[in-house]
Amino acid sequence: MSSRRELANAIRALSMDAVQQAKSGHPGAPMGMADIAQVLWCDFLAHNPKNPNWANRDRFVLSNGHGSMLLYSLLHLTGYELPIEELKQFRQLHSKTPGHPEYGYAPGVETTTGPLGQGISNAVGMALAEKVLAAQFNRDDFDIVNHFTYAFLGDGCMMEGISHETCSLAGTLGLGKLIAFWDDNGISIDGEVEGWFSDDTPKRFEAYGWHVISGVDGHDPAQIAAAVEKAQGQTDKPTLICCKTTIGFGSPNKQGKEESHGAPLGDDEIALTREALGWSHAPFDIPADIYSAWNAADKGSELESAWNEKFSKYQQAHPELAQEFIRRKTNVLPSNWHKDVTKYINALQDNPQDIATRKASQNTLNAYGPMLPELLGGSADLAGSNLTIWKGCKGVSADDASGNYIYYGVREFGMSAMMNGITLYGGFKAYGATFLMFMEYARNAVRMAAIMKQPAIFVYTHDSIGLGEDGPTHQPVEQLVALRSTPNLDNWRPCDQVESAIAWKAAIERTDGPTTLIFTRQGLPQQARNPQQLTDAERGGYVLVDSENTPEIILIATGSEVHLAVEAAQQLSAQGKAVRVVSMPCTDVFDRQSASYKESVLPANISKRVAVEALSKDSWYKYVGLNGAVVGMDTFGESAPAGDLFKHFNITTEAVVQAALDL
Amino acid sequence: MSSRRELANAIRALSMDAVQQAKSGHPGAPMGMADIAQVLWCDFLAHNPKNPNWANRDRFVLSNGHGSMLLYSLLHLTGYELPIEELKQFRQLHSKTPGHPEYGYAPGVETTTGPLGQGISNAVGMALAEKVLAAQFNRDDFDIVNHFTYAFLGDGCMMEGISHETCSLAGTLGLGKLIAFWDDNGISIDGEVEGWFSDDTPKRFEAYGWHVISGVDGHDPAQIAAAVEKAQGQTDKPTLICCKTTIGFGSPNKQGKEESHGAPLGDDEIALTREALGWSHAPFDIPADIYSAWNAADKGSELESAWNEKFSKYQQAHPELAQEFIRRKTNVLPSNWHKDVTKYINALQDNPQDIATRKASQNTLNAYGPMLPELLGGSADLAGSNLTIWKGCKGVSADDASGNYIYYGVREFGMSAMMNGITLYGGFKAYGATFLMFMEYARNAVRMAAIMKQPAIFVYTHDSIGLGEDGPTHQPVEQLVALRSTPNLDNWRPCDQVESAIAWKAAIERTDGPTTLIFTRQGLPQQARNPQQLTDAERGGYVLVDSENTPEIILIATGSEVHLAVEAAQQLSAQGKAVRVVSMPCTDVFDRQSASYKESVLPANISKRVAVEALSKDSWYKYVGLNGAVVGMDTFGESAPAGDLFKHFNITTEAVVQAALDL
Repeated sequence: MSSRRELANAIRALSMDAVQQAKSGHPGAPMGMADIAQVLWCDFLAHNPKNPNWANRDRFVLSNGHGSMLLYSLLHLTGYELPIEELKQFRQLHSKTPGHPEYGYAPGVETTTGPLGQGISNAVGMALAEKVLAAQFNRDDFDIVNHFTYAFLGDGCMMEGISHETCSLAGTLGLGKLIAFWDDNGISIDGEVEGWFSDDTPKRFEAYGWHVISGVDGHDPAQIAAAVEKAQGQTDKPTLICCKTTIGFGSPNKQGKEESHGAPLGDDEIALTREALGWSHAPFDIPADIYSAWNAADKGSELESAWNEKFSKYQQAHPELAQEFIRRKTNVLPSNWHKDVTKYINALQDNPQDIATRKASQNTLNAYGPMLPELLGGSADLAGSNLTIWKGCKGVSADDASGNYIYYGVREFGMSAMMNGITLYGGFKAYGATFLMFMEYARNAVRMAAIMKQPAIFVYTHDSIGLGEDGPTHQPVEQLVALRSTPNLDNWRPCDQVESAIAWKAAIERTDGPTTLIFTRQGLPQQARNPQQLTDAERGGYVLVDSENTPEIILIATGSEVHLAVEAAQQLSAQGKAVRVVSMPCTDVFDRQSASYKESVLPANISKRVAVEALSKDSWYKYVGLNGAVVGMDTFGESAPAGDLFKHFNITTEAVVQAALDL
Repeated sequence: MSSRRELANAIRALSMDAVQQAKSGHPGAPMGMADIAQVLWCDFLAHNPKNPNWANRDRFVLSNGHGSMLLYSLLHLTGYELPIEELKQFRQLHSKTPGHPEYGYAPGVETTTGPLGQGISNAVGMALAEKVLAAQFNRDDFDIVNHFTYAFLGDGCMMEGISHETCSLAGTLGLGKLIAFWDDNGISIDGEVEGWFSDDTPKRFEAYGWHVISGVDGHDPAQIAAAVEKAQGQTDKPTLICCKTTIGFGSPNKQGKEESHGAPLGDDEIALTREALGWSHAPFDIPADIYSAWNAADKGSELESAWNEKFSKYQQAHPELAQEFIRRKTNVLPSNWHKDVTKYINALQDNPQDIATRKASQNTLNAYGPMLPELLGGSADLAGSNLTIWKGCKGVSADDASGNYIYYGVREFGMSAMMNGITLYGGFKAYGATFLMFMEYARNAVRMAAIMKQPAIFVYTHDSIGLGEDGPTHQPVEQLVALRSTPNLDNWRPCDQVESAIAWKAAIERTDGPTTLIFTRQGLPQQARNPQQLTDAERGGYVLVDSENTPEIILIATGSEVHLAVEAAQQLSAQGKAVRVVSMPCTDVFDRQSASYKESVLPANISKRVAVEALSKDSWYKYVGLNGAVVGMDTFGESAPAGDLFKHFNITTEAVVQAALDL
């Protein structure tokens, strides 16, 4: 039988050879963490390579995603649908083995990693999802949700601020089934880390309330195995296992040095490494006995079968719960969803209210929430401002995780990356909120949701100078431009309670990407709509007010500026102009409509167009062109009551009228 | 003489009354931290209210900026040019007292705070700047740079990830003259923090190598004073003083509760608070003896005079150093700057080289660096990729701070906020680098530089799919759209070594805002230019190639796509088309040019326009309108060699030619 070291060397060989073949990549981390990975994957990880979606599998996250060949090697060796040809195509177009692990490319990749610190934060979200789902569904004798979440992380993840946010919260929430391995190799890209990273990391994690196992030799399988057992035994705290490792382990001239981190070792050094490791096989040639020792297909099938059996009994004992579990895990909306939502939206249209859209959002949560036990909400310490708590909310705590609301604390980036982890985990619709401005703190996690096609719902209130006195640091200007430019991200900025409910509907129904819901602090008048307009609003842009004759001017607006456009149209009509008002709550959805629908809303031959939005003008040239005008913001905001600011920045009905007349 | 408590109560009264008058704001933190502030400002802070710009003043940063009335009260009471009328205008348009402290509004505000965690990070930057400037300029018997940096911070700052990044680095760099006060009041917006923030914060900071003074009663002046003395005595480590306080101290019904945090107390509660505090004076009425006890003008003048005397002697002993100190502190470029830079740029044009612009950037640093001892560079652990180290670089460490390069570690946000602190401090031109993608981690600090009009220089390399194999998580698409939409931020994406040197020149010469310099990983061909074009390049956009006859088509490009446009123009010309190529390295600067210059580059009557940039198309509709075309990215990138990606995403000479012909 192959020794543990031989099995680990298979990872080392595949990693250095694939990086060499690609002429780029990171051999150091896979070679350094190979022994840890061998122990974890061969002795502990409960997974089924033949069904990467088995609900109760352990989750494994490689937070130091640049070490992707470690993960690809593990998936290949244990029997996932990732043949050796794919490893030979490492980092090539259309391969399943991109430079960093990308969710949806190779089976078994639980999340996309690479942007440092987010993987461990996804893992915290997954461990939290496991804890909440277990609390919601497990019953006496039926722990149908019961598994570990493992994460590997390096010094880079440790230095990133987001690791503080999410590891702190993991401690507070007592995520006892989260087990993280710190690859303490003392090297980052700029060299030996002591000049810029001298934290006492075990002490830091103890300060977060973690169970810390220090001083583990990351090349000693016995020590690693003992640590994992100890970690599994500690059920009320997450565990950090601090592993001393040698980066590029096995490379005689490059191990322990930055040279092995992010570049191919080179043919000569690879030959020397083969010799040093006693690995005589050709590149990409893995002996049958090594494959056989690694293969986890049989063990995985047994594990899943045992769970399936347990679930069958659970179905008998708790048929409704089991059905609900399946519904949630398969992302099916409740059967009454469509009917009840339509009814609610129609009722809102029939019973106008002039309220802030953040309040409309909360009302919508109160209407939709009871239908959606899969909602797992939260806010980064702004619940009372974001209005994210609805009547059915119950907080999740270390001692009672059966709730549906996370108090994330002042941790916007951590919250967002955890939401990605929760969404990837399955069984939940995660929403989380902050002010639109502080989306920026979390920005890259929002992008990651879009890259991974995960339907997380990001709620952003206080969406313009309309927030008033808090001033320029809190008033968004350019933020929505950035969001709209993000591929696969739908951004809704509704103008009243009706569009707010429609936006929430779209967010809940979306399956292939994230949505941002952008709401006002201040109250807004409700707009009139006929049934066709109510339906068209779901298309992201529609004619809200039209002229009797063919329009000569089109006013386009979103959110809090729609009523300005409507009023401007009235004034212009009074002056004999034929004016159309287009409400455009979601440019992203509008852009996906058919050419004919778009032409019906914005006919190409009408070039007199004015867009109005109390934000950066840059979103709107796409719709008004060189001959149109935009009423919006060119500068940062100011601190003053909202009414004063709209006048000061000249975002008023009169300004819209004037801009239209100037065309 | 007024008691300390009476002096502190003046802050409490001003804060609760100003918030009440504004009908919004945050009384809780000022009332809770008033006693700490009284001790620090009356007993320790070395400052001169009559000269807020005195070089050797202690720096004070209110990281919990929502407590702005604390700072305004202190500035008013100690004698800064901030009359009581301004406090009555709290949070009103055109006042000096906006909702959060904004740099440049009230004298004595050292930095804009509000976005949590950034204030303490600015303070870390300031303390580092002090340490470096002292190491560069102090001589035996002449400690002309020698002062403390104080910061107040709350639970929100503690939870934010950036506090981890910068406090960790402050420990590593041994910033012994940084003294931070943690307002440990146990309350954040969502209520009592224990449900979402249970860190052992003293232990956490000890893990960073800080000197921690725990268990200080933040309402006991003797304990506070003793702690500050102890902190001042510890010169090799930053100090955290953990102060237990009661938020809203003095309010009988709201102290210790979230109700006092972010809303006016209300008239009735204010009356009760007056009674409880024994403060019988009317709103905004401060008795003369209280004013007199607070006033720091005389003491401040004495302090500054003593320093001036010391500096005079230093001038005699070290005339050149003193002159250089004044030059750097007054932001004057060296006398040879303009001539030598022009010479360098001309030489580059005359000696073409096809290199990556990141390499051109490093060459430029080697050329400009020897002229600029004020450069304080760095990278977030990507020095070898960003190419930010030039020949004259010397690392700054805890033991030797006389260098000019900071190894920031993997801390993009922390680096950027520290750069803002360094720039605000004065005497330095700070540059710091990461990949363009990871600008997103730091995004809000870049915005803060723009709000504060601080000329920090953000260097971003690996600026498109051209980075290749690292894949979509590392390939920017929409990032430059966000940067360009940011008011007061200049963003340069040069196309060759000449434009790279011009971009650096612009960044160095800018005084009223930040600049981003965006460079390629891959090599680029050099473009030909005549002297007029060399000059026009500084205008951000210029005609690089023109047709003999009046152009019928304009191709606009930046950075790595300029050569595609030039090649496309050649092919189109061969087909008899009259084509102009505009290189637009900086849209922001171009937009500020005169209407006539802009018309000369982009004549309004030429509507056949194609923009080409291997990034989101959204920047370009402003320039090509509804009738033009954009060759760019609609989706996220992929992992593959760069050449394959440009073909895959159809960003090629052929695509530009086709787009032009399709118009």
